[in-house]
Amino acid sequence: MAEQPEGRVLFGVLDETSATESRVALTPDIVTRLRKAGVSCLIESGAGEKAFYTDADYEAAGATIASAQQILQQAHAIGFVDRPSEQVIEQLKPGTWVIGMLGSFTDEAYISNLEAHGLTAVAIERLPRQLSAAQSMDEMTSQNSVMGYKAVLEAANAYGSFLPMMTTAAGTIRPAKMLILGAGIAGLQAIGTAKRLGAVVTAYDVRPASKEEVESLGAKFLDLGLDFSKGQGEGGYARALTPEEQAAQQAAVDEKATQFDIIITTAKVPGRKPPVLLTKQGVQGLHRGAVIVDCAASELGGNVEGSTPGTQITDGGVTVIGAPYLASEVSTTASNLLSRNVADILTHFIKDGQLSIDMTDEIDQAMVVAGAKE
Amino acid sequence: MAEQPEGRVLFGVLDETSATESRVALTPDIVTRLRKAGVSCLIESGAGEKAFYTDADYEAAGATIASAQQILQQAHAIGFVDRPSEQVIEQLKPGTWVIGMLGSFTDEAYISNLEAHGLTAVAIERLPRQLSAAQSMDEMTSQNSVMGYKAVLEAANAYGSFLPMMTTAAGTIRPAKMLILGAGIAGLQAIGTAKRLGAVVTAYDVRPASKEEVESLGAKFLDLGLDFSKGQGEGGYARALTPEEQAAQQAAVDEKATQFDIIITTAKVPGRKPPVLLTKQGVQGLHRGAVIVDCAASELGGNVEGSTPGTQITDGGVTVIGAPYLASEVSTTASNLLSRNVADILTHFIKDGQLSIDMTDEIDQAMVVAGAKE
Repeated sequence: MAEQPEGRVLFGVLDETSATESRVALTPDIVTRLRKAGVSCLIESGAGEKAFYTDADYEAAGATIASAQQILQQAHAIGFVDRPSEQVIEQLKPGTWVIGMLGSFTDEAYISNLEAHGLTAVAIERLPRQLSAAQSMDEMTSQNSVMGYKAVLEAANAYGSFLPMMTTAAGTIRPAKMLILGAGIAGLQAIGTAKRLGAVVTAYDVRPASKEEVESLGAKFLDLGLDFSKGQGEGGYARALTPEEQAAQQAAVDEKATQFDIIITTAKVPGRKPPVLLTKQGVQGLHRGAVIVDCAASELGGNVEGSTPGTQITDGGVTVIGAPYLASEVSTTASNLLSRNVADILTHFIKDGQLSIDMTDEIDQAMVVAGAKE
Repeated sequence: MAEQPEGRVLFGVLDETSATESRVALTPDIVTRLRKAGVSCLIESGAGEKAFYTDADYEAAGATIASAQQILQQAHAIGFVDRPSEQVIEQLKPGTWVIGMLGSFTDEAYISNLEAHGLTAVAIERLPRQLSAAQSMDEMTSQNSVMGYKAVLEAANAYGSFLPMMTTAAGTIRPAKMLILGAGIAGLQAIGTAKRLGAVVTAYDVRPASKEEVESLGAKFLDLGLDFSKGQGEGGYARALTPEEQAAQQAAVDEKATQFDIIITTAKVPGRKPPVLLTKQGVQGLHRGAVIVDCAASELGGNVEGSTPGTQITDGGVTVIGAPYLASEVSTTASNLLSRNVADILTHFIKDGQLSIDMTDEIDQAMVVAGAKE
């Protein structure tokens, strides 16, 4: 580093890019924004490359390009797209703040380890999303929105026909019938994008409130003839269904699904095995040429039975795309939104030019999962 | 073949699918249509598989599944997506009709060979497209329309940001600025699709008439400050520009292009080297993250200097996609339209249940390039 940055809080971001991750937790416009808030930024060389930001772009915005080592040793706070690895944790100074998707709902041992290293940990997954002050910090919303948009593009690109209706001299092409399973942020964005492209869209979600949301976007709500009242879970996510409810839902969805050309499933539950919304039998019922995009596909399984990351074509000619990294694939926009979210979380914790915790604050209370006792 | 088909004219279609070709020149709905016109269909087993049609689908529609050998020996007429290979020509009986994109404007030797083998050749590329009776036979229009649609999906999928403007809690995302070079059928369909997706679209074509067409779709016409009057060539295609005109156009396009995020080039001239619309310098002027889809990319070059089939990322972070097979990638719709076109050409030549040529007919006169002298 050439010179000592001018701000009081030093915020660092490492290069987290990999084969499946193209995002970066800081973009040049956010560097400018943070400088105005008295924060100086350190960024690892090359961290923004996959989001199409060069080191020169960051320097022009006022950030300092540094090595990972320098950032780990000097930054007061480090922002992550994901969360720091064990190796990174080992290298962090006690007292350093860590902001990321820490997996605190499902991985207690990880959080204990952060605490044991004397780190202050801010868990983005615990953001109280319902607070209006938290809206601009809501990474789950911003990234799921990108995911829903991209899921439709993936599906449209894999589908062998047009999405919109077209009337041509050589005949009329009927519009594609699309079913969106899971009508949270991602599902609603998928509905909007599919409608833009001219598809006829139907959607389904277990949350009773979603019917109105789906219909307000001009899509049809899929009537399964089943009642899962109290479907809304903690923090605005869908709750897990009972085994009986799941079986009834699956059978009904499998049956209804046969009439659709494209199915997009978005029921991702962070850190948990995703619910199966479409069984093998449901997939078999689809017509040759149908396309499924499963946004919840993972090593733990997906919303579609048997789906894994990547593309498979079944014997029945159905293309099943397991797509766990969709937000990352729209790397510039996803990074822009995510880095704004992370920056707003960071500045929330700055009082009088210092990082500090106020456990009477609802956001602090919810999100600080380690290092709060000082 | 189990039994003798009932129609008088026997129409055959071979399996032309390959790594880059997924289309088929006959789809099941067209089998039904042709039967009503007194035509019986023979189709090679597996020919429709990549367009998601099975042998069973064809049989259900009333076609007979056959081997290539059987079709070559028995069919009165054979329809092609492309054109028959030398090897296929060798096996055809004299008197057989061949309907396809024969390359007659540029490959005289090929046409002479068809003539020498006693074949009757109908060249789709010579369709008098301006006749209203020819509209439903216009394969160039139907396939270019599919190409234009797909080009936008390819571009959107490769682009790291959203196409539409989005107002979110984490900031507003500006819409993508898209430039369509070449505003023929493909370009106009690309404009429509890009506008559906919310991009801000500008288009350019050398034909003076295109300004009005572009603007009628709600896109802006790119003003280069240059005049290429009489830009309309024979048969409705763009004429080739003089070297001086090309240089002036290239320089102007290169300069204007720098302000765009996505560029789609569609100036394909059948059988000829495509005109360069964007030079290497133009590509270098684009911002990191910009995406180009060159529909004219081929072994002969493309509309973008240096583009080849496939995806390249320049040192400046510009993604250049050479995409010569876009229509084929929307295999079902492209095949449906194409097979309707081919079928309507076929039935045009059937009079009193027989294939025959009437050289006083404008369509016959234009399209029959071999075997007309009998």
